[in-house]
Amino acid sequence: MNIWGMFSLRVCMGLARHRTSLCTRSLCTVSGMTVSQIDEEVAKLLQLKAQLGGDDGKHQFVLKTAKGTRDYNPKQMAIREKVFSTIVNCFKRHGAETIDTPVFELKETLTGKYGEDSKLIYDLKDQGGELLSLRYDLTVPFARYLAMNKITNIKRYHIAKVYRRDNPAMTRGRYREFYQCDFDIAGQYDPMIPDAECLKIVHEILSELDLGDFRIKVNDRRILDGMFAVCGVPDDKFRTICSTVDKLDKMSWEDVRCEMVKEKGLSEEAADQIGEYVSMQGGQDLAERLLQDPKMSQSKQAVAGLTDMKQLFSFLQLFQVTDKVVFDLSLARGLDYYTGVIYEALLTQTGPIPAPAAAATEQNGAGGDEGSVSVGSVAGGGRYDGLVGMFDPKGRKVPCVGVSIGIERVFSILEQKAEASAEKVRTTESQVMVVSAQKNLLEERLKLTAELWNAGIKAEVMYKKNPKLLSQLQHCEDSGIPLVAILGEQELKDGVVKLRTVASRDEVDVPRAELVEEIKKRTSLV
Amino acid sequence: MNIWGMFSLRVCMGLARHRTSLCTRSLCTVSGMTVSQIDEEVAKLLQLKAQLGGDDGKHQFVLKTAKGTRDYNPKQMAIREKVFSTIVNCFKRHGAETIDTPVFELKETLTGKYGEDSKLIYDLKDQGGELLSLRYDLTVPFARYLAMNKITNIKRYHIAKVYRRDNPAMTRGRYREFYQCDFDIAGQYDPMIPDAECLKIVHEILSELDLGDFRIKVNDRRILDGMFAVCGVPDDKFRTICSTVDKLDKMSWEDVRCEMVKEKGLSEEAADQIGEYVSMQGGQDLAERLLQDPKMSQSKQAVAGLTDMKQLFSFLQLFQVTDKVVFDLSLARGLDYYTGVIYEALLTQTGPIPAPAAAATEQNGAGGDEGSVSVGSVAGGGRYDGLVGMFDPKGRKVPCVGVSIGIERVFSILEQKAEASAEKVRTTESQVMVVSAQKNLLEERLKLTAELWNAGIKAEVMYKKNPKLLSQLQHCEDSGIPLVAILGEQELKDGVVKLRTVASRDEVDVPRAELVEEIKKRTSLV
Repeated sequence: MNIWGMFSLRVCMGLARHRTSLCTRSLCTVSGMTVSQIDEEVAKLLQLKAQLGGDDGKHQFVLKTAKGTRDYNPKQMAIREKVFSTIVNCFKRHGAETIDTPVFELKETLTGKYGEDSKLIYDLKDQGGELLSLRYDLTVPFARYLAMNKITNIKRYHIAKVYRRDNPAMTRGRYREFYQCDFDIAGQYDPMIPDAECLKIVHEILSELDLGDFRIKVNDRRILDGMFAVCGVPDDKFRTICSTVDKLDKMSWEDVRCEMVKEKGLSEEAADQIGEYVSMQGGQDLAERLLQDPKMSQSKQAVAGLTDMKQLFSFLQLFQVTDKVVFDLSLARGLDYYTGVIYEALLTQTGPIPAPAAAATEQNGAGGDEGSVSVGSVAGGGRYDGLVGMFDPKGRKVPCVGVSIGIERVFSILEQKAEASAEKVRTTESQVMVVSAQKNLLEERLKLTAELWNAGIKAEVMYKKNPKLLSQLQHCEDSGIPLVAILGEQELKDGVVKLRTVASRDEVDVPRAELVEEIKKRTSLV
Repeated sequence: MNIWGMFSLRVCMGLARHRTSLCTRSLCTVSGMTVSQIDEEVAKLLQLKAQLGGDDGKHQFVLKTAKGTRDYNPKQMAIREKVFSTIVNCFKRHGAETIDTPVFELKETLTGKYGEDSKLIYDLKDQGGELLSLRYDLTVPFARYLAMNKITNIKRYHIAKVYRRDNPAMTRGRYREFYQCDFDIAGQYDPMIPDAECLKIVHEILSELDLGDFRIKVNDRRILDGMFAVCGVPDDKFRTICSTVDKLDKMSWEDVRCEMVKEKGLSEEAADQIGEYVSMQGGQDLAERLLQDPKMSQSKQAVAGLTDMKQLFSFLQLFQVTDKVVFDLSLARGLDYYTGVIYEALLTQTGPIPAPAAAATEQNGAGGDEGSVSVGSVAGGGRYDGLVGMFDPKGRKVPCVGVSIGIERVFSILEQKAEASAEKVRTTESQVMVVSAQKNLLEERLKLTAELWNAGIKAEVMYKKNPKLLSQLQHCEDSGIPLVAILGEQELKDGVVKLRTVASRDEVDVPRAELVEEIKKRTSLV
């Protein structure tokens, strides 16, 4: 490949990856290469790279984490654990069990599930065994688990990391390794009951996390398909037109229309009819109105979806969550596997983080339809009644509905909140520090500390023979340890320990035999 | 490569991987190929495999998890979470913070840290970016984290999965994806204080997990090196002889001696002298005796190690854990990076699982020196004062000591215990199920359930319009839900809910306004 070919290839890859809204995307064919030609060239380049020392460890070592990933320091972990605890408590309140699956799956398990996003899957190197890929979401492994174990009924949550070779934008909470918190209900039930519970869960979690106001958009794939049918979209263009509609959260209608007509060959008339529908938002009333709509009522699909939408809203009223839920005909979500209700929750206050682009939030949603979520999106999901059947040797279906909480953006918001707040985040739970002011009391300090450990008290001791009192007290201040147990010759003689409250600097002698009870009493109030 | 070449290569790889104790290992050079020739051939084979459809998804799809990995079902998760909670509570009791690191690291971060076990590292496919590998343990990422963030003092725990392309033996708790629970103390402190705390932690955790009797072996790399020196092992053979000594837990002394002499070229005299030392076991007394040993006392290294060993035992006495700790000169551990004290804990009852070979337990230990652990080993670790310096651009050292609890075998034991026990493992925490005996009460059931959820009660409801009372009650029996809230026309009229205790079948009418309190009261006792 010549330099110009190389350059245009790079530019085009950049454009494609950024999902630019320009209608000029078709430029990408300029290089005149087929996919397989590109693959070939890429392989050559990689080979070249390897020859240049990519693999021999002899070049300058860079001290960093892999691109798009990060460590969590103790403060970040404290925040993360608080968020997880809120979410897990909610999942448990709703009677969910939990499962875990391996971080990698057979490559073929993931094949054909993610559409064009499949290019973002991390593959493992073929080291002579099975071909493996890192999981891209938790939904496909869940479906594989159900099929493999012939499970037809389960309500489970799964909190774990997933992996996408995406363009990271880490300051905006967008990573290549990130957490998903999934809750799914599998089983054959009466319409819209589990679906409504999923929305109730989103409502509970977002309320409890206290991230500011939010909105939950709902729609139904059958309503979208019915709408496409009555607007005159050819059957074989449903999915691709759906993908374009999906971009309405970050592109103007004009650009979306342009893509439909110019790129995807839809008639202007059909596009304009779609345009009318996708501008509609409402509640149960809108579902009722559309059921009366002369065109929509022609489509069996649409009528089924709208009838269920009405039912869904009546359950949501019982759950008292309709204040945040909007039936929005522009919501499409990218993934192929949705078959019914779909939804997406977004924060409506931009909050402390500037949210300059949808890029910040593309990682949410049960299934990683990265193109489908909008600014501030923190959860997404829907019904996928066909996915388990794709794994079952006999194609037996297990209806499923679920929701995925995309937690990285929530972490970012809470991290910034914590930094802005005067309150200190504690990273340990230590209740007491065993110290001495005098020399040569290491053994006595260790002995007392072990007594406390054995009694279940969270205790620290400094690993020095003769530490300074001040540095021991300073450690308590720094790490928020509320109590200090001070040992000295006199205390040892008297059979007491001087117990100091760090905040008030009060000190009181406590008989050694009563120390454990006294620490428990005081720290249960802290 | 001809068929015979191929065959012998396979055989040799198999032999190497199984670490056979036969002295016939040198057969491995029979094929006459260099490593790079092998690499080349392997690449060709992989290419061939790909051409044969390895990558195109068209062959028969197999519904399974990747080799050496497993899903955790809800019951297994319930056990796993109980074990983790015991371990985390212990780590927190000792004042540890927690961190997290990405599941993959730059390949070069792992390079040169694991010696010959490096072949077991999972690499990611080069998809055009950085070269990445899955983490092999949590120790190297920890050291990388310290160097990268210039942290010189921290006490942290980290519980996460690590990855090794090892020969799985899953029924015996040996996997390719498995958990490690690591606790490490980094910082410049007075000798043996943090080291003693690590051993105290192992003692606490193994006692609390109630897995039967256990033993903790300790030794020191400096004692080993000193011993090698005074026994006449040439300097450049210390590490390789150390690796051979490390096999004493699964090979007889005769086989170890044979490997030293025949394979590694050690003199018979030196081997016999080593043989005398490595048969020694004891406590503080042994350390004292060896300090008087005419040969050992010649080595500065040995004297330093023995002096520290004496000190260590005096701290362990204060901690009251010497009943389980043995100073054992045959303990070597495989990893290069240990610089001082090393230890390893093993269960001394074989327990419910037949433990036919060390293979069952090779995955434990801070650093995965798979060759070094013995039958029943469940924890290992030691001091590694040089590892952080390998990452620091200026080579600044941060002394570290830590322990890794290898939890998979513990899971296996507890799983089998749970299966043998009559007691049922609950997989949800649901407190109450909202049911009705009559038809057409779905809305009322949902409304009451939402009231309970909003009050923080863990409540379930069946997703059916008109479920049978019996099937609702059966679900409670099956999943251990202790209470049932029954709604009927009469109860609705009277403003009450019939609250049924599943175990006793007692029923009592509770005013609706008092239901939440009543459920809380009853389930806090359950």
